[in-house]
Amino acid sequence: MSQFDNVSVVKKANVYFDGKCVSHSVLFADGTKKSVGVIFPSTLTFNTGAPEIMEINGGRCRVRLKGDADWKEYGAGQSFAVPGNSSFDIETLELLDYVCHFGN
Amino acid sequence: MSQFDNVSVVKKANVYFDGKCVSHSVLFADGTKKSVGVIFPSTLTFNTGAPEIMEINGGRCRVRLKGDADWKEYGAGQSFAVPGNSSFDIETLELLDYVCHFGN
Repeated sequence: MSQFDNVSVVKKANVYFDGKCVSHSVLFADGTKKSVGVIFPSTLTFNTGAPEIMEINGGRCRVRLKGDADWKEYGAGQSFAVPGNSSFDIETLELLDYVCHFGN
Repeated sequence: MSQFDNVSVVKKANVYFDGKCVSHSVLFADGTKKSVGVIFPSTLTFNTGAPEIMEINGGRCRVRLKGDADWKEYGAGQSFAVPGNSSFDIETLELLDYVCHFGN
């Protein structure tokens, strides 16, 4: 599935970390929310409120979840889950194209 | 209107000019298309196929349409029209948050 249908899109972008991360919010009829975005090469720490699933559409990154010692690498077609009220470190090696699913 | 309703959103981002411009495509039931995106501070030249209206939601830029001698400045709440099969130079002074309306 290359697109989301029957959704609302917030016009204004979400810009984080001085522009290293740019996303747009996508709202679904059932009240759930996702974001579609990119992360430029960088090493960042993201905090979660709701649990998240990060789905990678392109690029490559290494991820370390809070409390984990090891980094795991992910690329196009892969995804990783992050618990709510937690955090993860992400080293983006090549421009990351992603969909973030909230509340999963 | 802060969002587009009943639309489709293409998951994969459009990344132009080495990441200086990032957008996502939004598809409407009537077959028209828009994109929501950002342009980082830079001076770029965009070519148009279809005519475009660039609606600025945030930031500030100076624009010179093809064939024009003068640059005009635009900020949040303003927009400018570009003919089809043409081009425009855009100097982004502050991170530009925009909606591009195609075929207008």
